[in-house]
Amino acid sequence: MGAAGGDDARWLARAAALAERARPLSSPNPGVGAIVVRDHRVVGRGWTQHGGRPHAEAQALAMAGEAAHGATMYVTLEPCAHQSTRGPSCASLAIASGLAAVIAGVEDPDPRTSGKGLALLGENGIDARLVPSPPARASLAGYLARRRAGRPFVTLKLATSLDGCIALEDGSSRWITGPSARAHTHLERARNDAILVGGGTLRADDPRLDVRLPGLEHRSPARWVLTRGSAPSGWGRLADPTEISAIQDVQYLMVEGGAQTAAAFLAADLVDRLLIYRAPIVIGDGRRAIGSIGIGDLAEAHGRWRLADRRQLGSDILEAYVRSRAPAHPAPSD
Amino acid sequence: MGAAGGDDARWLARAAALAERARPLSSPNPGVGAIVVRDHRVVGRGWTQHGGRPHAEAQALAMAGEAAHGATMYVTLEPCAHQSTRGPSCASLAIASGLAAVIAGVEDPDPRTSGKGLALLGENGIDARLVPSPPARASLAGYLARRRAGRPFVTLKLATSLDGCIALEDGSSRWITGPSARAHTHLERARNDAILVGGGTLRADDPRLDVRLPGLEHRSPARWVLTRGSAPSGWGRLADPTEISAIQDVQYLMVEGGAQTAAAFLAADLVDRLLIYRAPIVIGDGRRAIGSIGIGDLAEAHGRWRLADRRQLGSDILEAYVRSRAPAHPAPSD
Repeated sequence: MGAAGGDDARWLARAAALAERARPLSSPNPGVGAIVVRDHRVVGRGWTQHGGRPHAEAQALAMAGEAAHGATMYVTLEPCAHQSTRGPSCASLAIASGLAAVIAGVEDPDPRTSGKGLALLGENGIDARLVPSPPARASLAGYLARRRAGRPFVTLKLATSLDGCIALEDGSSRWITGPSARAHTHLERARNDAILVGGGTLRADDPRLDVRLPGLEHRSPARWVLTRGSAPSGWGRLADPTEISAIQDVQYLMVEGGAQTAAAFLAADLVDRLLIYRAPIVIGDGRRAIGSIGIGDLAEAHGRWRLADRRQLGSDILEAYVRSRAPAHPAPSD
Repeated sequence: MGAAGGDDARWLARAAALAERARPLSSPNPGVGAIVVRDHRVVGRGWTQHGGRPHAEAQALAMAGEAAHGATMYVTLEPCAHQSTRGPSCASLAIASGLAAVIAGVEDPDPRTSGKGLALLGENGIDARLVPSPPARASLAGYLARRRAGRPFVTLKLATSLDGCIALEDGSSRWITGPSARAHTHLERARNDAILVGGGTLRADDPRLDVRLPGLEHRSPARWVLTRGSAPSGWGRLADPTEISAIQDVQYLMVEGGAQTAAAFLAADLVDRLLIYRAPIVIGDGRRAIGSIGIGDLAEAHGRWRLADRRQLGSDILEAYVRSRAPAHPAPSD
């Protein structure tokens, strides 16, 4: 039995929360979450595994076993319809499992699936529907950015004072924010496939850009530098933000500064999410967070950013803003 | 009958909320709030009237009338013990009214009262006690700053972008924030006796600094300018923030900029409260909110500011931070 509309939205939000566990290790596959529900109880759940397989649906259906008969599966992304050398399609698994219904939160833009997954399910007697889900869309931000814009989903991270400085005039920035905010930054690094800094920051700070959280050290992302010069061994190099599609197999990229690099990505409108850690201090004439981005009129600056998250981290506050874009472009709320 | 400790704190908080109605029109008297409670019901309430008289206690007792017999009066500030040409002392009114108890949230630093008000009540058989109340203290911030530091309580107001800019590089600042935030600024003006801007802002913007809210136009504060030059007719003039005690009969002063004026007050440690309206826009290399305040080490910058309030105003966010000071100095939580 399919559930009511409000319930669909809630189950899809729970599937989206599960999908967070797939981020970013599912890469290059989308990080999907799936929940199998029977008589209002969860009988199976899954998320895309490390390297992209098994898929979330396969995990959830395996967990449900016989209980999948007559159940409803909620899945953040339309189940795949194409056979792969690595296993059967999720649509065929769903049909074989005896599911009564499949509710997907986002249609898969992959041309091999796009609409075909749900159609195949429907042809096989399953109540298969798309129920657009903002949390599901947000959880697929990196995959959707790659599919629709051919580039990673870009987060710009800033750690500033109340008055928008990222360092004293002499460059000292240890520490603007406190230990909780710094630990959270490391968690955010673990949620990204790659991190990028500018050449100036690389030369000045020689940053490690690794994940220094117990148990998550192996999640340190690939390192990229924005420079017209050369990159250190093991680092990727980008000469200009507009060449971002050269960063392949990366769904989530975090830009960590400095001000000129932040400005270059903003000026190219290549920032999807601002992550601002703000400490309760006033610096005055310190270094700015962001260089020139070419705004000639205040009206241009408005309507671009929407607050998506806010939390207290020790005495600091974290705010996440997402770029408001036209519907054709990914507009995740993560 | 006196109430229990937790109840005392709650009634004092309610008295402090009433005191807000006295701000800033009670000047030069403190803006006090009083509630008379009998059998857990409010039988009288009052706040200091325009120009400072009648006092809050006189208002609350007049409203209670006979019901004051055996009741408890909660008052934000210790009742005055000194007769005035303008009326009897509040202590004598409380005694005549037959109150059983008087609970005050802050001891009056006025040497004519300091402790004497409560003592006089006690000598006359009233259960008179001081129950220190942070909201009562916050509601008296202006009065306490004048009594203890000989100067007004200073709020520094900033309207910034997410990256701490107050204008584009060319000076355009219309508008950074939206209509709700701008209306709130006018409300804050009405809560201050005086507003100050720097000479540069005065020359560049010729600001009206008035209260443009229907029904509150008469609450427009006195205008001051920080300048070594001359002030326009009708404006007060301050040559340097350290001469702030020259601003007499003002309990609440709001500094509205620009960046050098903000910096001068911060550098002199004369800002008690930061009021930051932040719009969800990114400007980049616009004008900064605050000039040099002489911070040589990040450690110095920490531990000074505590978040006291945060609210959404349309798409903007208002944050109020208060200066953390040693107990000898006023440290209101407003």
